[in-house]
Amino acid sequence: MNAEFINPFLTSILNVLSTMAQTNAQPGKPEIKKDKTAKGDVTGVIGMAGEQTKGSLAITFSEPAILHIASKMLMEEFTEIDEAVIDTVGEITNMVTGGAKKLLAEKGYKFDLAIPTTISGKGHTINHKSSKAIVMIPFTMDAGDFFVEVSFEQ
Amino acid sequence: MNAEFINPFLTSILNVLSTMAQTNAQPGKPEIKKDKTAKGDVTGVIGMAGEQTKGSLAITFSEPAILHIASKMLMEEFTEIDEAVIDTVGEITNMVTGGAKKLLAEKGYKFDLAIPTTISGKGHTINHKSSKAIVMIPFTMDAGDFFVEVSFEQ
Repeated sequence: MNAEFINPFLTSILNVLSTMAQTNAQPGKPEIKKDKTAKGDVTGVIGMAGEQTKGSLAITFSEPAILHIASKMLMEEFTEIDEAVIDTVGEITNMVTGGAKKLLAEKGYKFDLAIPTTISGKGHTINHKSSKAIVMIPFTMDAGDFFVEVSFEQ
Repeated sequence: MNAEFINPFLTSILNVLSTMAQTNAQPGKPEIKKDKTAKGDVTGVIGMAGEQTKGSLAITFSEPAILHIASKMLMEEFTEIDEAVIDTVGEITNMVTGGAKKLLAEKGYKFDLAIPTTISGKGHTINHKSSKAIVMIPFTMDAGDFFVEVSFEQ
């Protein structure tokens, strides 16, 4: 997997955050995920599948990060991860992959999107059962951190 | 979503458990998931996507349930949810959806499978961002319980 696959997801999440939540996040260097220590409190997962490609995307938020984003998106202050916040994570997951799908289609990579799944629970860890590399991009905001993980096979 | 969609997953998981882990599980009555209280310690999630259908499947195991199944499958006693156990959850998720995909294709429902994602962390909860009903099937074994959740849109 190369930058051509990763950049559309990076572009798409920054785009979703700035347009939907008027929030900027600082992307760190994408790296190959080697250990499983990236922990979060709420995660959105979505599958991508086509005849030639398949993949999975996970966006894992720390509690302060998602409370900040959801508060900005829904224009209401959230102080805990409740149903509305979890639903927002599913919505963000949908929008990020929808945006990346469009950008990747322009490069000739076609796939369909599955239904997003959200997971909540303090300090859970995520893994992808892929034979290929899993790329993790850390993002920082003043409010907190989150991680995007992408796994793709052709 | 009707029984025609659910039964292939039910058949497939019982088949995987009996052939791969020489284990029988007792399925409970499939029900429409209304609250989000089903908790587990390790979950396998996979997306399904095609031109006409999309969906997601989650299999959420309690710790005693997956330790029993992994110990039988790998013929080695596991006493905690480690990397090998988490990998087994991904493998089970793959096999269950692979089996169900075959059965559903015979009925004319075609989709491709994404890459399985596994989540570990004590007592996490799962949700699916679907406009349609989410069906949950509880399974009991002497060793412990697990849940299969299927969400499908056409």
